Amino acid sequence: MALIVQKYGGTSVGDTARIARVADRVIRTRESGNQVIVVVSAMAGETNRLTKLAADLTDTPSEREMDVILSTGEQVTIGLLSIALDARGCAARSFTGSQVRITTDSAFSKARIQKIDDSAIRQALDRGEVVVVAGFQGIDEAGNITTLGRGGSDTSAVAIAAALGADVCEIYTDVDGVFTSDPGVVPSARMLDRVSYDEMLEMASLGAKVLHIRSVLFAKKYNVPLHVRSSFNDKEGTLVTREEDIMEALEVTGVTYNRDEAKITVVGVPDQPGVAAKLLGPITDCNIIVDMIVQNVGTDGHADVTFTVPKADFKKALSCAQEAARELRAREVLSDDRVAKVSIVGMGMKNHAGVASRMFELLSKEGINIQIISTSEIKISCVIDDKYAELAVRTLHDGFELGKEPAVAENT
Amino acid sequence: MALIVQKYGGTSVGDTARIARVADRVIRTRESGNQVIVVVSAMAGETNRLTKLAADLTDTPSEREMDVILSTGEQVTIGLLSIALDARGCAARSFTGSQVRITTDSAFSKARIQKIDDSAIRQALDRGEVVVVAGFQGIDEAGNITTLGRGGSDTSAVAIAAALGADVCEIYTDVDGVFTSDPGVVPSARMLDRVSYDEMLEMASLGAKVLHIRSVLFAKKYNVPLHVRSSFNDKEGTLVTREEDIMEALEVTGVTYNRDEAKITVVGVPDQPGVAAKLLGPITDCNIIVDMIVQNVGTDGHADVTFTVPKADFKKALSCAQEAARELRAREVLSDDRVAKVSIVGMGMKNHAGVASRMFELLSKEGINIQIISTSEIKISCVIDDKYAELAVRTLHDGFELGKEPAVAENT
Repeated sequence: MALIVQKYGGTSVGDTARIARVADRVIRTRESGNQVIVVVSAMAGETNRLTKLAADLTDTPSEREMDVILSTGEQVTIGLLSIALDARGCAARSFTGSQVRITTDSAFSKARIQKIDDSAIRQALDRGEVVVVAGFQGIDEAGNITTLGRGGSDTSAVAIAAALGADVCEIYTDVDGVFTSDPGVVPSARMLDRVSYDEMLEMASLGAKVLHIRSVLFAKKYNVPLHVRSSFNDKEGTLVTREEDIMEALEVTGVTYNRDEAKITVVGVPDQPGVAAKLLGPITDCNIIVDMIVQNVGTDGHADVTFTVPKADFKKALSCAQEAARELRAREVLSDDRVAKVSIVGMGMKNHAGVASRMFELLSKEGINIQIISTSEIKISCVIDDKYAELAVRTLHDGFELGKEPAVAENT
Repeated sequence: MALIVQKYGGTSVGDTARIARVADRVIRTRESGNQVIVVVSAMAGETNRLTKLAADLTDTPSEREMDVILSTGEQVTIGLLSIALDARGCAARSFTGSQVRITTDSAFSKARIQKIDDSAIRQALDRGEVVVVAGFQGIDEAGNITTLGRGGSDTSAVAIAAALGADVCEIYTDVDGVFTSDPGVVPSARMLDRVSYDEMLEMASLGAKVLHIRSVLFAKKYNVPLHVRSSFNDKEGTLVTREEDIMEALEVTGVTYNRDEAKITVVGVPDQPGVAAKLLGPITDCNIIVDMIVQNVGTDGHADVTFTVPKADFKKALSCAQEAARELRAREVLSDDRVAKVSIVGMGMKNHAGVASRMFELLSKEGINIQIISTSEIKISCVIDDKYAELAVRTLHDGFELGKEPAVAENT
């Protein structure tokens, strides 16, 4: 008998007909002889509806109270799913974050899970019940309701799987699994049978929307196998697992892109120690996350510093940079918010030389100029003109032959 | 400095504009130097919306899970009102039933409050915060979410006022106060300045919709003054209080009516001990509440038993009565679901003879036949043909001169 955690996102529980289908799937899993814990999100649209109510009252709602309001979304879903299971003769019991005792810190709207009490869930499982838990929520030490922020329900599911020692955490979503690239841009994109935590982390941080980075980090830390699959069909989906469990790592596993960044270059900064800190300090102080940073030293004792920020923070970051540039007596500030970041990810890159130069060559052949390059152990990212984004993704996907089944069979 | 509990019903918090107006009123009360605890219902329509979602899944939803779902309605309102207060510079903090620790029994959907922990609320008041509590809900000893059923938010407010020793519990609603009769039927109906708990209890149980009987019982038991008033204007409303606090009790305080009953008569029952029990036992066993019961003994050793039941239970009650009548060898069963109950209520009745005969005389003058009479210390009810209901109410209201200000000034 396996213990399986299943997480269903907002689209999968978007209306009562879909909730009924989720109940059927849970019962099939139960009847195959497994214990099941289900973690659910709010019904699609519900979080927006609640956020708008608060926005009617003020632009800056109290974060504590927003969490009180938003946490009701998941609470409705756990009740409805438990009712659907119960109506089909399957004993079920719902739990809010407070009832499980999912303890978090007190950072309202972006709380982090600190501890999960497994006793109430275990008692229900021992009674033969399906356990239905509200994702995205917890309570702090003082009993305040908290929410986990973006991707929170995935994180809840993985954390519960880790706390209960589940055999697998199944993430049900509206796509079939993890793909080599965005199928909307690359028609030949292929679903991956397996992908490592680290590859998934890079792909998530680079814009792939299937899993949130926090849940993957959690899964990696506690070694919880993640099974990403569709709630609308029975396809097998993608297993996200340890590198060791993947027989032959691919050179390049996936191509991702991100259009949500803008580029700022401060030209002619005196090349002295501490200049980058003086430039970027005020920006990070404003809670703006700086992504790529590149510094080129010129021959005249001056340097150019280029960095990227989320598009939403572009204007604020630009005015910060302009002020810092004045103080540092830099020559000028250039900016461009029509850029895209294109990245290739793959574990095998570590052991294969020449992947980077092959990437640059493929882009250059299409006449695409590279503005910034940034690399990690298993990833290479290039910032290019936004208008070439789709072309670059397709070129790299085809150039690295990601649409083909890998020659060496993966260990299944 | 007084401690005031204010309860706002679903219409008073029906949209965000109304919630903002509630916030303004709370702040005015706060700025007059009072401590304020606010108890709120779900936004009007919300409970129906949630009930319909569950009805999509099954006709017989699990009661435990329905309470999980329905309790979210009040949770959204406490968050929104706290946000509105906070946005106006008034420190506020919301509490779910679980966060207060409003402990109830485990009768889901109709739980009864057993204990209220006042410590969390008191700490918040001591910090100078307005406390915003979700009405209608609690938790049982095992931590399950419960709801209190009809009129639950009123009961929550009164129970909290009792637990905290509040000076008054203000019930804000969509009418100006308690009237001598339904203003929709009796244009001359007058708002009462004061009314006793017992009169209010009779009026509530007879169909006046302003306050639920459970909350009045609670208020009477713990001697909590109730102040019924409108959330849409600043009129003074009606104080529901102890009989001793009302200088001169009126003979008749109000006239109410109820069209939600049906009448069943079992004719020619052998007049033996235990016959009424044999007749009514099976009906109450079906959870049907029998209201009025009258037994007339005839001269032939047989009796006629007449009783009334809620219209919704009429068919079930009738078939129960027919079966019991066969077993008791009764002559026949008559029934009529086109009846109305008209009642007069007043503390002064206890000390004034002739109120009943004046009532019968007034009805008879209009040619209205009385089918059943039932009396208590402070109430007389008559069942009549439904078509005369409004005429009877107006006749009694005018006959007892309830539209006039009372000659003796009340103690204000």
